[in-house]
Amino acid sequence: MSDEIADRRIAFLATDGVEQVELDAPWRAVTEAGGTAVLIAPDAGEIQAYNHLDAGDRRTAELGLDDAWAEDFDGLVLPGGVHNPDTLRADERATRFVRGFFEQHKPVGVICHGPWTLIDAGVVEGRTLTSWPSLRTDLVNAGATWVDEEVHVDAGLVSSRNPDDLPAFCDKIVEEFAEGPHEGQTT
Amino acid sequence: MSDEIADRRIAFLATDGVEQVELDAPWRAVTEAGGTAVLIAPDAGEIQAYNHLDAGDRRTAELGLDDAWAEDFDGLVLPGGVHNPDTLRADERATRFVRGFFEQHKPVGVICHGPWTLIDAGVVEGRTLTSWPSLRTDLVNAGATWVDEEVHVDAGLVSSRNPDDLPAFCDKIVEEFAEGPHEGQTT
Repeated sequence: MSDEIADRRIAFLATDGVEQVELDAPWRAVTEAGGTAVLIAPDAGEIQAYNHLDAGDRRTAELGLDDAWAEDFDGLVLPGGVHNPDTLRADERATRFVRGFFEQHKPVGVICHGPWTLIDAGVVEGRTLTSWPSLRTDLVNAGATWVDEEVHVDAGLVSSRNPDDLPAFCDKIVEEFAEGPHEGQTT
Repeated sequence: MSDEIADRRIAFLATDGVEQVELDAPWRAVTEAGGTAVLIAPDAGEIQAYNHLDAGDRRTAELGLDDAWAEDFDGLVLPGGVHNPDTLRADERATRFVRGFFEQHKPVGVICHGPWTLIDAGVVEGRTLTSWPSLRTDLVNAGATWVDEEVHVDAGLVSSRNPDDLPAFCDKIVEEFAEGPHEGQTT
């Protein structure tokens, strides 16, 4: 337990189908660095995590999207899982919430299939990021530059490909959350 | 049982995570119209179907993608399910197989999340189709025109949104398979 981000409040946005380890590992990294982690889902209450195609544990969202505002947080984490961002990207409350972090230049960490939500939030044009390989075409067609790296940092936007990249991803999100807003992190 | 498409051999391409009803209902429609349905997966053998987030039945693929060629079929069905096309679109054998139907002007039916595979096959630019709503942005960014209709037919390309649309989808795919090649069905 350090106090690297002791005053930082970090939002984790997820819903049913979230890849469990991609929620849990960054959550542990944020809390162990002294930050406050808050789970947000479309509605407050339980969501069902998955280990690839198999149901895992349930996690409890403290806030629903009707009560969540980017203004109240210092950073955002978007875990993967296939169903999770496929649902979030089609929820205008989710894409508005995510877009708020970019408008306010606040650091965002996104992994695996998580960037689908960024596409519908309209924030990837001109940015460089990585993802699960199946999203490459969608990200390039949305105007992003796609790279195949364990972790890529583009002015406050931290991205990784899959659960194997979690150690590098977790180190970088804590670093970016500690640094605070980045001018280049924008819509 | 009719003989509307008695001489037609129709490929169904799917893998783990396929939405069960979107495989079974078109399969029944094709066989009841007298056609021959052949299930193809990345590898021959069993695949796991799903009912949304819950595991359903297993289905057996007769052919693997190493042994499947568009030349040997008269039409193609791409069912949905989220994991299913997310895997297929990243498999070059799958996108090459799918592209073959468009190069040979053969009818293709696609439903729900199935069109993701069409994006990576490079065949949606200039075409009009529908899908599960979360794919709208990806399809538009890939150059397609997206419509919100129960079933849309664009020169041999039949598309629907979700399982509720299956009756209309099944009627139209049989109709297009009966008609045979369409000049406008192209890459």
